[in-house]
Amino acid sequence: MPAMRFRVWAPFATDVELDVAGARRPMAGDGSGWFQVDVPEATPGMDYGFALDGGDVLPDPRSGWQPDGVHGLSRVPEVFTEWTDGGWSAPPLEEWVVYELHIGTFTPEGTFDAAVERLSHLVELGVTTVELMPVAEFSGDHGWGYDGVDLFAPHHAYGAPDALKHFVDAAHSRGLAVVLDVVYNHLGPAGNYLGRFGPYFTDHYSTPWGDAVNFDGPGSDEVRRFLIDNALRWLAEYHFDGLRLDAVHAILDLSATHFLEQLAEEVGVLVEQLGRPLYLIAESDLGDPRVVTGGTLGGYGIDAQWNDDFHHALHAALTGERSGYYVDFGSIEDVAKAMREALVYDGRYSSYRGRTHGRPATHLSSAHFLAYLQNHDQVGNRAVGDRSSALLSKDLVKVGAALVLMSPFVPMLFQGEEWGASTPFQYFTSHPDEDLGQRVSVGRRKEFAAFGWDPGEVPDPQDPATFLRSKLQWDELDDDRHADLLEWHKRLLELRRATGGLGVGKMGDVETSFDEDRRFLIVRRAGMTIVANLSVAPVEVPVEGDLGTSLIWSPGEPRRSKDSLKLEPESVVIYSSREAA
Amino acid sequence: MPAMRFRVWAPFATDVELDVAGARRPMAGDGSGWFQVDVPEATPGMDYGFALDGGDVLPDPRSGWQPDGVHGLSRVPEVFTEWTDGGWSAPPLEEWVVYELHIGTFTPEGTFDAAVERLSHLVELGVTTVELMPVAEFSGDHGWGYDGVDLFAPHHAYGAPDALKHFVDAAHSRGLAVVLDVVYNHLGPAGNYLGRFGPYFTDHYSTPWGDAVNFDGPGSDEVRRFLIDNALRWLAEYHFDGLRLDAVHAILDLSATHFLEQLAEEVGVLVEQLGRPLYLIAESDLGDPRVVTGGTLGGYGIDAQWNDDFHHALHAALTGERSGYYVDFGSIEDVAKAMREALVYDGRYSSYRGRTHGRPATHLSSAHFLAYLQNHDQVGNRAVGDRSSALLSKDLVKVGAALVLMSPFVPMLFQGEEWGASTPFQYFTSHPDEDLGQRVSVGRRKEFAAFGWDPGEVPDPQDPATFLRSKLQWDELDDDRHADLLEWHKRLLELRRATGGLGVGKMGDVETSFDEDRRFLIVRRAGMTIVANLSVAPVEVPVEGDLGTSLIWSPGEPRRSKDSLKLEPESVVIYSSREAA
Repeated sequence: MPAMRFRVWAPFATDVELDVAGARRPMAGDGSGWFQVDVPEATPGMDYGFALDGGDVLPDPRSGWQPDGVHGLSRVPEVFTEWTDGGWSAPPLEEWVVYELHIGTFTPEGTFDAAVERLSHLVELGVTTVELMPVAEFSGDHGWGYDGVDLFAPHHAYGAPDALKHFVDAAHSRGLAVVLDVVYNHLGPAGNYLGRFGPYFTDHYSTPWGDAVNFDGPGSDEVRRFLIDNALRWLAEYHFDGLRLDAVHAILDLSATHFLEQLAEEVGVLVEQLGRPLYLIAESDLGDPRVVTGGTLGGYGIDAQWNDDFHHALHAALTGERSGYYVDFGSIEDVAKAMREALVYDGRYSSYRGRTHGRPATHLSSAHFLAYLQNHDQVGNRAVGDRSSALLSKDLVKVGAALVLMSPFVPMLFQGEEWGASTPFQYFTSHPDEDLGQRVSVGRRKEFAAFGWDPGEVPDPQDPATFLRSKLQWDELDDDRHADLLEWHKRLLELRRATGGLGVGKMGDVETSFDEDRRFLIVRRAGMTIVANLSVAPVEVPVEGDLGTSLIWSPGEPRRSKDSLKLEPESVVIYSSREAA
Repeated sequence: MPAMRFRVWAPFATDVELDVAGARRPMAGDGSGWFQVDVPEATPGMDYGFALDGGDVLPDPRSGWQPDGVHGLSRVPEVFTEWTDGGWSAPPLEEWVVYELHIGTFTPEGTFDAAVERLSHLVELGVTTVELMPVAEFSGDHGWGYDGVDLFAPHHAYGAPDALKHFVDAAHSRGLAVVLDVVYNHLGPAGNYLGRFGPYFTDHYSTPWGDAVNFDGPGSDEVRRFLIDNALRWLAEYHFDGLRLDAVHAILDLSATHFLEQLAEEVGVLVEQLGRPLYLIAESDLGDPRVVTGGTLGGYGIDAQWNDDFHHALHAALTGERSGYYVDFGSIEDVAKAMREALVYDGRYSSYRGRTHGRPATHLSSAHFLAYLQNHDQVGNRAVGDRSSALLSKDLVKVGAALVLMSPFVPMLFQGEEWGASTPFQYFTSHPDEDLGQRVSVGRRKEFAAFGWDPGEVPDPQDPATFLRSKLQWDELDDDRHADLLEWHKRLLELRRATGGLGVGKMGDVETSFDEDRRFLIVRRAGMTIVANLSVAPVEVPVEGDLGTSLIWSPGEPRRSKDSLKLEPESVVIYSSREAA
């Protein structure tokens, strides 16, 4: 067996030592900032770290395992030998239905292994793809994951690297693709030692989360390499089918080749090497179709992006909420526009932003956009983390679900949404550093005080109860109300599968009509007609011609007369002229 | 005659008053931050200003005339009635030869009127286009102009607005196009009152010159409007044929529609309205062909950009200098690459930047790039502002000129370059504010101390002698050495005109060969062959086939043998096979 090679990029250091197996060994520099040493006696499972210029031992920036947390030693991962997904290939994006989940709260145990036990639920639900919220090692034992600092290491509380690999393998064996949420726009505030090794950060730009990552300053080639290697490692070594890229609007890069474009190109090379498709999905607040436009047309070549415009339009129309960014939304017209054109803000003035925002995306396939009634942010960034099902009647939740799951976009559900989970998803952290913990607690309360919340009403992120409260309660499924909602989601997804025409395609194929006062919306696409009544009153909707067969409705089947349709309050019905034909 | 309407955007103010004709008048707000008032008795020539919330009277952000400088009142410009350029239309960019000049130092008088008197020199020289360094009102009586703060007002020391209009008209009447250098990436440090009126600036980004202009934050729509209206005013009201956009890499804008793209679109609309072509030329340090790529391919649609890569490669090869950014250049190979592909850094690692820089532009027309042996920055940003002609032998200056003026790019000369002016172009300012003046003086010396310059050797920017020293000495033209250089430039430009094949076109049509050790370079294009010897030794250059007729050479005509050409030291020769045919 060849000696194990340890490498680290530490251009800020003159001398670098490897600390492993109880001894410090000098590492040889190559003049470019890289240091390396071969250790014949090193084996998987051994702990190690690097000492810069005779200082303390620090974790490896590319550590694959931090069993003792962000401040502890790194451990050489075991070699995983149990892959069974040899023939696996993710379905095309056009067929995806995404299910976003957070390992720590998805199950009582909060581990990869426990999550495996719930995969059959997802298969039965009818989703195609699991999206894991970030798993990279972050400070503390529980948290959302967006404070990761050891970007190559699965969080110690979720299980060992092998457990994550087993999770992906188990998903594949059940026909589920798996996507991982990765955060490349900032690093967490605790346990971030990268700045001691090299120029990972820059003060040339400011971000809401402190120092910006150095994407275009001196030394940025290796910083980009670090992040792209991170992406490639999750995809190649962990067999993920894609990555969700957090907040790409905070990836500030004026290079001639934007980081996202470089990432997409290198992932494209990996696709060739692995012989299976891989997908990149961006969270983008840019309103810029460039993100999901191909490189030959000057775009970054990312496959798809979350579409908050769709969410905000639907949420504001359903709930009537108008605070914060919802000030920009609220009309049924906006929901209709989101259905037809994906982006509502496409060069339109935004009051919330105080400026014109976005540009049209109508030349693109609708498969480039994800649609959702909620996600971890839209739930968790509310003061008390309350879900749509806590804000809306069950009937209106069903209307919302129908509009999302029958949309021409890639639909996404957030864990528990399918049964209207009564548990909230609140903002929780567990920073061991008391000062930092205090700042996070106070900051959270201050943030919502601005919206009129009493500090006592806002859950303390550092309180372990906030975390525990956010765990799904699977026994709720025994309850009729929840079982009924679950059934509704299953039926919609079944219908989506059965009627390929409701899948995604070119934008412009969708027709809408609506009445702002009477609050109904009709969406027509590929032989399907979705009629929704968002009002608490019954409504008579004018319709012409043959709508086809009514396939699914809630709460009651509407009454059809010659040129109208009588809908119950907060109701929805879906017709297919194909079925009729 | 209708009443004169005064308008101002002042969203930071509650009450705005117009101070004109000895009285303050309340202005009516429209709720969007705009205030206006009609004044029947106002006439051109009257001084005015705005008072915000009862404060001091400030100049109009869109002032067209600041006769008393940046802190003085604004004056309503006279109506210019002497236009004679009715049928004028600028030639296509492909035919341009640009001449950059600075009004303050181009003539002894330093005025628009005095510059008119020298236009015949430019016509005789053979350039097509005059590019004025920025004329927008800046602090003091003389300066380079990049510290402008009243962006709509020609600098008071150069003459009244009418004088600038007369200059443009006079140029047009002589067949010369005129381009104005405008600075939209920052404003000067003195006399900048914009921040009192509205959110013109942001601290979201940092620039080398302080607060960044707010291109994408709250309120940025009107900031962009302000700048675009500025561009349109110079083009429409002053009849400029184009704008040179200073340092677009410092226009930090993450909007879905970049400011440059919006600007190009709106200038495109003006082209339709005016029925004559208008050109936008960027100074870009981005190495990104996106700037000069059309909108349909995801670009910003700017017409052309300065190509510092070409300059740096040529300068470093000719002078042997390697300090500062010249560390990235120096080989003949780089000159050859610049000739063939415009960008030398096209995804190549740059030591100076400490990162990979640029991307290929070879799919673009070479008309998108300007080539020059020097410009105001490359001369003036040297410690003592010395020109190429002070650094090189006259023969080598001729070689450089031939490579620039016979290049496949849009060539540009810097005032006086055509006769190898002995006057330097030094960095000069005249800030009346003593503190600021002191900071500029000290800062300049400190900057060059880092390069080993003794403070006493670096001219003091605030010393009036530094300005006076930088003025062209036109009587130098009586000197043989200078007259000879002028003649050389004239002959080259004549040759460029005569041989359309040396004009610009698609990249990839240029072939080069060179020898790094023997220091010769051959450039072949469209039937022309340029052979240059950069060495102080004679060189025998291997050549094959018929080179055609030798049209021009310096210092002596090379001797041709069967398969080689014997070149004198520091020499150049140009052949045309077309002429021979």
